[in-house]
Amino acid sequence: MSATPHDTLHQYLNEIRRQVDEELERLLPGAQEYPPSIHQAMRHSVFAGGKRLRPILCLEGGRLFDGDENCLLKLGCALELIHTYSLIHDDLPALDNDDLRRGKPTCHKAFGEATAILAGDALLTLAFEVMSERSESPERRLRVIHEIAYAIGAGPGRVSGQMLDLETAGKDADGWNVYLIHTWKTGAFIRAAVLCGALDAGATEDDLAVLGVFGAKSGLAFQIADDVLDVTSTREQMGKSVGKDDQQHKATYPAVYGVDESRRIAERLVKEASEALEPLGERARRLREIAHFLIERTH
Amino acid sequence: MSATPHDTLHQYLNEIRRQVDEELERLLPGAQEYPPSIHQAMRHSVFAGGKRLRPILCLEGGRLFDGDENCLLKLGCALELIHTYSLIHDDLPALDNDDLRRGKPTCHKAFGEATAILAGDALLTLAFEVMSERSESPERRLRVIHEIAYAIGAGPGRVSGQMLDLETAGKDADGWNVYLIHTWKTGAFIRAAVLCGALDAGATEDDLAVLGVFGAKSGLAFQIADDVLDVTSTREQMGKSVGKDDQQHKATYPAVYGVDESRRIAERLVKEASEALEPLGERARRLREIAHFLIERTH
Repeated sequence: MSATPHDTLHQYLNEIRRQVDEELERLLPGAQEYPPSIHQAMRHSVFAGGKRLRPILCLEGGRLFDGDENCLLKLGCALELIHTYSLIHDDLPALDNDDLRRGKPTCHKAFGEATAILAGDALLTLAFEVMSERSESPERRLRVIHEIAYAIGAGPGRVSGQMLDLETAGKDADGWNVYLIHTWKTGAFIRAAVLCGALDAGATEDDLAVLGVFGAKSGLAFQIADDVLDVTSTREQMGKSVGKDDQQHKATYPAVYGVDESRRIAERLVKEASEALEPLGERARRLREIAHFLIERTH
Repeated sequence: MSATPHDTLHQYLNEIRRQVDEELERLLPGAQEYPPSIHQAMRHSVFAGGKRLRPILCLEGGRLFDGDENCLLKLGCALELIHTYSLIHDDLPALDNDDLRRGKPTCHKAFGEATAILAGDALLTLAFEVMSERSESPERRLRVIHEIAYAIGAGPGRVSGQMLDLETAGKDADGWNVYLIHTWKTGAFIRAAVLCGALDAGATEDDLAVLGVFGAKSGLAFQIADDVLDVTSTREQMGKSVGKDDQQHKATYPAVYGVDESRRIAERLVKEASEALEPLGERARRLREIAHFLIERTH
């Protein structure tokens, strides 16, 4: 059987995932390094089988501008470390209180709360250590670090989005609340992932503006799709608790707009994200495919 | 009354503290920024009246090499943000479970656990945002970020020290355990504070080697002095719970060596730290004074 375009994308993504996992293996201290508890906890969560979406977007953003593959791979891995830190802290009993993540016990379930808090801290810190390694263009790399830090902080970024998510739970949310929460909590970091690969590879300001729009729209679409899956999937399909958003009366797109309308919003966002890439022409084909892939699981 | 050399040092340090507080005020979003809870929690802990020791050491390290005052001040503030993050997370119920810090309720006591975890995350992230701002020498600045990240991570650094501290509590610790815990948990970051000011200001590798020894020895001395104070002071003098190390059977210098011998070890370390600065001559006078100041409260 010859490969369909669809198979080809999956093969392409799987090859990136394999490279990312190999590089993460190199970047993380071994499970027996002293003190082993912290390193085992970090590895438990990093190697729990994530989709490696942020490294994929970072690599793809950088490949558009012929960035150095090794630099992009390391940068992508740093983003995955940050993503894992945020999952560990979000899952804690004081926050979302989740027991299951990617089909495995969450970090605090497996290692206790103290170790989970510290493992999250260590992964966030390690990400900045990796990003600050010698770089072809230290000037561009500083800007990459700045973009990433801004996207995940309180200024507003991931932390403010998570804060708002917690504060809005149990209250009647409207479209504006849920837009802000998703944009800050997930969208800003996904946008930064595409941007920073391109930035590191030397993209122009015009190119960055285009990719910023693409990243923001597809990042929001991805989170909406995730909300929809929380309603329509089983725990086995997702590898994590489902239906929790509704139980905790969380502000989500399905809660505000219903499942069908949420799917339509996500589709429209992906279409707009793809169209935003027009100035980049045919070389942005993969990025367009990836944006569609982000929401395809919901259809 | 004319100023004694001692008064002069205190005036000198107070002037730095005033500048640091002013700059922190500029760097942190206002208490009413949205969502206010996270910004209030961050400000609560940052402005709880710390000694600003790490900014002082960073500034002093950079002044030795005529570094740009504004750059050094920002860098010093980033270190204070990191220090505050580490206090917030260490105080959490799952870790040291402390209610009082610098005479005020700890962050989770005042704002709840979820907000405290996120406020710590946000301060750590903001520190890297501040450090990655445009710099005179992006190459040196990248190395500064790398040094700091390494000192506070699991590789080993602060996180591993804290992990070890928790795991060793309740067990019989020896001199080697307590040396490792203190060096990783506190010493590495204090060493990095002196180093990174000098690094950013363009110090040579030889100068950095000298300052590294100074920082490591005076950092360890500072933590030993802090242990001694936990035994000999009152809650009112310290503004935080005292005697807790002993209650929790923590690995400390007084527990292993007794109070008097611990004082002697701290004094010897400060003497060695001062002597290490010899190649820098008279211009390192302030740094020597500061090292003595670090342990003077215990005598």
